[in-house]
Amino acid sequence: MAQEKTKQVSQITDMETDFAQWFTDVCKKAELIDYSSIKGMFIYRPYGYAIWENIQRILDAEFKKTGAENVAMPMLIPESLLQKEKDHVEGFAPECAWVTYGGSEKLEERYCIRPTSETLFCEHFKSIIHSHRDLPKMYNQWCSVLRWEKTSRPFLRHREFLWQEGHTMHATAEEAREETQRMLNVYADFLENVLAMPVVKGQKTDKEKFNGAEETYTVECMMHDKKALQSGTSHYFGDGFAKAFDITFTGKDNQLHYPHQTSWGVSTRMIGGIIMTHGDNNGLVLPPRIAPVQVIVIPVAQHKQGVIEANEAVMARLAAAGIRVKMDASDNSPGWKFAEYEMKGVPLRLELGPKDIEKNQCVLVRRDSGEKTFVSLDNIEATVAEMLDSIHEGLYQKAKKNLEDNTYACLSLEEVKEKMVQRGGFAKAMWCGDLECELRMKEEAGVSSRCIPFAQEHLSDTCACCGKPAKKMVYWGVAY
Amino acid sequence: MAQEKTKQVSQITDMETDFAQWFTDVCKKAELIDYSSIKGMFIYRPYGYAIWENIQRILDAEFKKTGAENVAMPMLIPESLLQKEKDHVEGFAPECAWVTYGGSEKLEERYCIRPTSETLFCEHFKSIIHSHRDLPKMYNQWCSVLRWEKTSRPFLRHREFLWQEGHTMHATAEEAREETQRMLNVYADFLENVLAMPVVKGQKTDKEKFNGAEETYTVECMMHDKKALQSGTSHYFGDGFAKAFDITFTGKDNQLHYPHQTSWGVSTRMIGGIIMTHGDNNGLVLPPRIAPVQVIVIPVAQHKQGVIEANEAVMARLAAAGIRVKMDASDNSPGWKFAEYEMKGVPLRLELGPKDIEKNQCVLVRRDSGEKTFVSLDNIEATVAEMLDSIHEGLYQKAKKNLEDNTYACLSLEEVKEKMVQRGGFAKAMWCGDLECELRMKEEAGVSSRCIPFAQEHLSDTCACCGKPAKKMVYWGVAY
Repeated sequence: MAQEKTKQVSQITDMETDFAQWFTDVCKKAELIDYSSIKGMFIYRPYGYAIWENIQRILDAEFKKTGAENVAMPMLIPESLLQKEKDHVEGFAPECAWVTYGGSEKLEERYCIRPTSETLFCEHFKSIIHSHRDLPKMYNQWCSVLRWEKTSRPFLRHREFLWQEGHTMHATAEEAREETQRMLNVYADFLENVLAMPVVKGQKTDKEKFNGAEETYTVECMMHDKKALQSGTSHYFGDGFAKAFDITFTGKDNQLHYPHQTSWGVSTRMIGGIIMTHGDNNGLVLPPRIAPVQVIVIPVAQHKQGVIEANEAVMARLAAAGIRVKMDASDNSPGWKFAEYEMKGVPLRLELGPKDIEKNQCVLVRRDSGEKTFVSLDNIEATVAEMLDSIHEGLYQKAKKNLEDNTYACLSLEEVKEKMVQRGGFAKAMWCGDLECELRMKEEAGVSSRCIPFAQEHLSDTCACCGKPAKKMVYWGVAY
Repeated sequence: MAQEKTKQVSQITDMETDFAQWFTDVCKKAELIDYSSIKGMFIYRPYGYAIWENIQRILDAEFKKTGAENVAMPMLIPESLLQKEKDHVEGFAPECAWVTYGGSEKLEERYCIRPTSETLFCEHFKSIIHSHRDLPKMYNQWCSVLRWEKTSRPFLRHREFLWQEGHTMHATAEEAREETQRMLNVYADFLENVLAMPVVKGQKTDKEKFNGAEETYTVECMMHDKKALQSGTSHYFGDGFAKAFDITFTGKDNQLHYPHQTSWGVSTRMIGGIIMTHGDNNGLVLPPRIAPVQVIVIPVAQHKQGVIEANEAVMARLAAAGIRVKMDASDNSPGWKFAEYEMKGVPLRLELGPKDIEKNQCVLVRRDSGEKTFVSLDNIEATVAEMLDSIHEGLYQKAKKNLEDNTYACLSLEEVKEKMVQRGGFAKAMWCGDLECELRMKEEAGVSSRCIPFAQEHLSDTCACCGKPAKKMVYWGVAY
């Protein structure tokens, strides 16, 4: 019944009919985002931004546990600075926005708005790193970056998007590689334990790695439509930038050395991932640990004496237990309210009316399953906390089943083509390591390499594409 | 003795010799900020940024208590959008940085990097405000803005600086004016109760108000060198922007109305204020409630058995009590450590060595006064908390005395000139309300109007400048 009302109120496209339109509808109707007058530059509305604030709060604490410190670098990069590392500038210059005037004066040198900040951090590192005592430097910044993309979609591809970028310098390659793995694991754990999004962890092929990196690591997630979303990356740079920027330190051996560098980042793209992993035809479904509102309290027959007070009392108890709770005592109809908070993906709805008060109980309705339960008010804090955990676990298991059910071991290019065309999802296939075969996979089966997973399997001895000896098993798929 | 060491290590200019150089030295030596390769664009280093994070955390909670919600708007403004409000564009266009290329393509229209975001918010408000039910809208964003200034100084005048900007829309002028006052009070309370900076609250004259505002309110602080720092402003726009952007709503009377608007902001300039209010010749002095590290624990004779463990135990107890505490067990000398944390303005130093352990005591040294006390470990959490409060109160009273001792009632322009040239500080003087007299004050006495204080005094019946009937008492001073 509530579901019927939702459809009436929200009028979003069915995901089975048009997944892309369903996604856009959810972004708009759940009031996560709005369009601005510049193509590809979006407005993060309060509800969408509140999700990002929760992501920031939780990840920031994890970063700080690893010893990372926050800084803020300028948003502009002089063109000459961007050009210092050859691969890096080749990758980013074509999508930079360029500032050419300051006030009414034409600038002597163009400045680009940061598409990423490796070059700015390197310039700063050069001025503050001199001795092995200055290492490691583990910095992070929360900011927005700008890439002049041709096409755009809310959360998935913006010209300007919010993200964090970690930049670290270490005395040895080994320490830098450890950092790369450590931060990839921070992302993986966050995606699984907070966003309920199961991940495939692995390394990018050379073709897919970050401009200027020696190695790129990634966490890949499968969306409800079986496409892949690259959800976080961590890069090992070796000493390439250090050499280009002439950053050196005096080691314990009293010799000059180049430090070894990493960078790592996630963005508001993850919010797109949450929507496409957990959402349904009634709208957004938020994993409880990230939901701005975990419990929406709806008083039933709220005009009757004592109802509002009883609802406020329950709300206060939940809030005191650290649960993010809100009450809607507006004069909108219950049907409107049910639909509204379903659209917004609030994990639990708590209904409390005169009869419930008499019986010292309330009704809890789960957003994920629609399941309705009468529970005692006696221990409502623990009951709600347990149900929120159960919703998290349910969402995670459902997403994991989607990932597992739609991942296929394929022994030949033909099999990849057949499976991918018919069903979509991820193909696991052996690979010889040659770019040629990677390009052929794209050309003939329409899939790109997602990653060389850490969890390798030996499917056969030969490359699925060319039949030469295989080096690695690779995940292939269609990506956002 | 500790002070002697500080001077040896830090080598900062004496504030009495050259206040401006002392300020820059503190910014650099306390590792708050660094220069980038673009003039006027600074790098906020971890320790400086940590102060900003504390400011954000505390103010953000206060904003949310008033009902404000956070959003994120694009960083670029199309030139045509900036031009919609005449006074606004006249004020800001001369200091905009302009983006003219996206990738390799010349843009059809120039975009400026936001110098402030009224125009962007108005465009968004137009799309989301339709009915009185949509009001009030109370939005805030934490971001950086860019103004192409000719001169720059760390924290005080950046081309790019971090700030927050609140933008709100209300059904009536009265509600909007209330919001303007509410937020000014949030700033005033924060400055006094957290940053220990006493304020003068008041209204700006027409000459000094924000471009496009009907009324601007301000909190003005007096720095140690007796100059003024405008530390936060709150603007009432009336319905000027609403008319320029054609934002209307259907009222309860079923008629179309223009909403009434405010904006309010503070920036990292406040960190400059902290430095110049509380700092001394040994470096930074941080008010305890904003200090990233409130207590630095220095083990004495740390190589001796049990010393590190005892220090860690005290640190754990303080941390458990919610005190921000750090231990330095590095192999730097005690003298180096004392000087280092004095330079960084850590409010309290806790020393604990073998003899203290025997006596169940430790030494506490206050950064503000240098006072050294032996205290029992029995109740160390409460002792430290009380001492931090006492430091806050001491800093506040000292700054208040500076403000009061250097504020003079002046009855004539001659008296203003004499007092200001001899002693600096604030002059209180009666004003007829004419721009001409305001300009003459600047011309002849070198002072600008800081504000028309809410706490009016009747010094005389006539304008100190022209002798005509006075309308208001005004604070005058030299400002950063």
